[in-house]
Amino acid sequence: MDQIDTSKYQNIRRSIDESWINVHPIQRGGILPSESKKALLSFADGYSTCDFCLEGRIDLVKTPPVFDFADDVAKFLNMDEVTFTPGARGAKQAILNSITKPGDYIVIDSLAHYTTYIAAEVACLKLSEVPHSGYPEFKIKAEDYAAKIEEIKKETKNLPAAILLTHVDYRYGNLADAAAVGKIAKEYGVPYILNAAYTAGIMPIDGKKLGADFVVCSGHKSWASSGPIGILATNYEFSKKTFRTSTIKGPWSGRSFTKKYVNIFGCPPVFGAPIVTLMSSFPHVVERVKHWDEEVEKIRRLIKELERIKDFHQLGQRPHQHTLVSFETPSFHKISKTHPRRGFFLYEELKKRKIAGIHAGMTKMMKLNTYGLTVEQLQTVADAFHEIARQYGVEVE
Amino acid sequence: MDQIDTSKYQNIRRSIDESWINVHPIQRGGILPSESKKALLSFADGYSTCDFCLEGRIDLVKTPPVFDFADDVAKFLNMDEVTFTPGARGAKQAILNSITKPGDYIVIDSLAHYTTYIAAEVACLKLSEVPHSGYPEFKIKAEDYAAKIEEIKKETKNLPAAILLTHVDYRYGNLADAAAVGKIAKEYGVPYILNAAYTAGIMPIDGKKLGADFVVCSGHKSWASSGPIGILATNYEFSKKTFRTSTIKGPWSGRSFTKKYVNIFGCPPVFGAPIVTLMSSFPHVVERVKHWDEEVEKIRRLIKELERIKDFHQLGQRPHQHTLVSFETPSFHKISKTHPRRGFFLYEELKKRKIAGIHAGMTKMMKLNTYGLTVEQLQTVADAFHEIARQYGVEVE
Repeated sequence: MDQIDTSKYQNIRRSIDESWINVHPIQRGGILPSESKKALLSFADGYSTCDFCLEGRIDLVKTPPVFDFADDVAKFLNMDEVTFTPGARGAKQAILNSITKPGDYIVIDSLAHYTTYIAAEVACLKLSEVPHSGYPEFKIKAEDYAAKIEEIKKETKNLPAAILLTHVDYRYGNLADAAAVGKIAKEYGVPYILNAAYTAGIMPIDGKKLGADFVVCSGHKSWASSGPIGILATNYEFSKKTFRTSTIKGPWSGRSFTKKYVNIFGCPPVFGAPIVTLMSSFPHVVERVKHWDEEVEKIRRLIKELERIKDFHQLGQRPHQHTLVSFETPSFHKISKTHPRRGFFLYEELKKRKIAGIHAGMTKMMKLNTYGLTVEQLQTVADAFHEIARQYGVEVE
Repeated sequence: MDQIDTSKYQNIRRSIDESWINVHPIQRGGILPSESKKALLSFADGYSTCDFCLEGRIDLVKTPPVFDFADDVAKFLNMDEVTFTPGARGAKQAILNSITKPGDYIVIDSLAHYTTYIAAEVACLKLSEVPHSGYPEFKIKAEDYAAKIEEIKKETKNLPAAILLTHVDYRYGNLADAAAVGKIAKEYGVPYILNAAYTAGIMPIDGKKLGADFVVCSGHKSWASSGPIGILATNYEFSKKTFRTSTIKGPWSGRSFTKKYVNIFGCPPVFGAPIVTLMSSFPHVVERVKHWDEEVEKIRRLIKELERIKDFHQLGQRPHQHTLVSFETPSFHKISKTHPRRGFFLYEELKKRKIAGIHAGMTKMMKLNTYGLTVEQLQTVADAFHEIARQYGVEVE
């Protein structure tokens, strides 16, 4: 073995702490309340949640109360059964593995997260994409799901194996009409997967009301959890299939593992930090979804403030329905062309003001998320942008 | 939505802290050094390691230095390339997905971890099990791999798609002869997977010397990490296949994701707590593997002490090569038959003495792990067992 210099792994610390205003598009919903940091430290060691494991599966552990928790999360989402997965991505793979076979079609929205595409690739599925409306709103129309289902019926004489809708997409923060897609799913009798990675945990979700057969959530994205952890919620119709347990048998030893999930690695790999923080943040999450309207109001105010800058245009739905939002910012892009730091000037100007989370180097467009920031913090963000604009001769109305 | 009582999720704390002596079979190698607890707190929030992500994959992130880390871990294991997975279980699934096709045979040892069986089940493989020698040593003989390969050749006219050896098994803590199996793999030209979940990170491992094409490790089991995180190490021959990236394309949108892993959910779901603690514990791990001999010496001394109790017999290899060890304990089982607390008496007697980790309710056999405990702590454990034995009239030599 060569000598390894391990000094660079000593004192690893995050450079952005609570004194910063962080508008990172994927980080706002995953910030831990202080209570969960204490729980995290208490359960810091690997397998720490397995002290009293009797059944060999984390979702059946009673101390700490994971078993009850799975049930309470199901209630919270108004679904029948829940388990936990290594990220929402893991939930999508488990679902597709359980209800499709290679060569099947699934219909997805064209704003889907990349992990939806990868899950389809792993399961060897054919994709049909529901188009979006293009610039500037990029909307998904629910009725296009019906059109795509009809297309597939015509081509294959069969229905697609599933349809998947991204409730709020990661690019524009558009809120899709999940209930309308649910109706179409029901009419055709096609299983309906709702990717609620950007909604469940920050806004109220009622899976049954939306007609979802599966609701997929992300703990680190929207449930104030360290993660990585996903939530896979389904109804009684599918739970047996998706949560099926092992039937393999050792041909010589006769060993079998009848309690272990096939589609989620046996015991879901979420023990320790992920499940403990998800669980300990749950009281906070149950409470915070009641205040979603205030969050929407705040982002709308910020959009208004930022659009005072010349050539700043919010992309996606108007009025906006989510704290994740994209802007095209050609006036700032123009600055980058002659600035010695090129596209990095914006990132660096914001950094000076202790504002983090805008993608470094990008000025053509920008994306941010304000979930959980205060009115005052958002005013600081608006002021910073105005200041930077003026500093570089861009008009602010 | 029903009213949910979230009070039980408040103040979740582990009941076993550092004032206890914990001999839990799966927990000893996953205990964080204090340095890593600081790193964990700093990176507590979901997606905290993504502040400076430019390429969309955690193993390419340079701040914190995950990119370098993957390289250093490869060096440490003497393998060519490394990535991270949701647990060792995730690594096994990724490997089997990448080098087998449904219906293929793989040869595994009959002491393999259940996740090896599940990974085979998911990949729709046929299993051939190398038998163990049975009571009391339960040894795996390397040459039996050759016999199983021959059997499969005879039956199918083909070689198995892979062979897998569990370096140290979870039941008896037996250390298999990984180099001898490596030689057989090379002779037949069969890909060789070494499951080093109980070895790499606590004892020195040289993947190339052992002839392994794949080394699978567990961060939460043996690398002092919160996890869940696995390490998938391979050589140049297989890295392209196993670490292959996405080729799917949105048929309408044209979207593609050419940096994302197909077999590991795109960006491996280990960002945040798992990768940060694995990384910050690495200096500790690199140092501690040098002291493996002392650990073996300590467990041998404890075995000797415990075998002074009438009818306590260590199972598995003698002399023992690992800190994980099983005993048959018929004298204690006899006590449980008339004790009002039945099999729980042992667990409760140990609990009184602040010794944790022996499976509650079991007295026929017991399993423990002493990795990282001091000579004094092990003496306390031995004394406790002697005391309990005498208390219930079991002779101590």
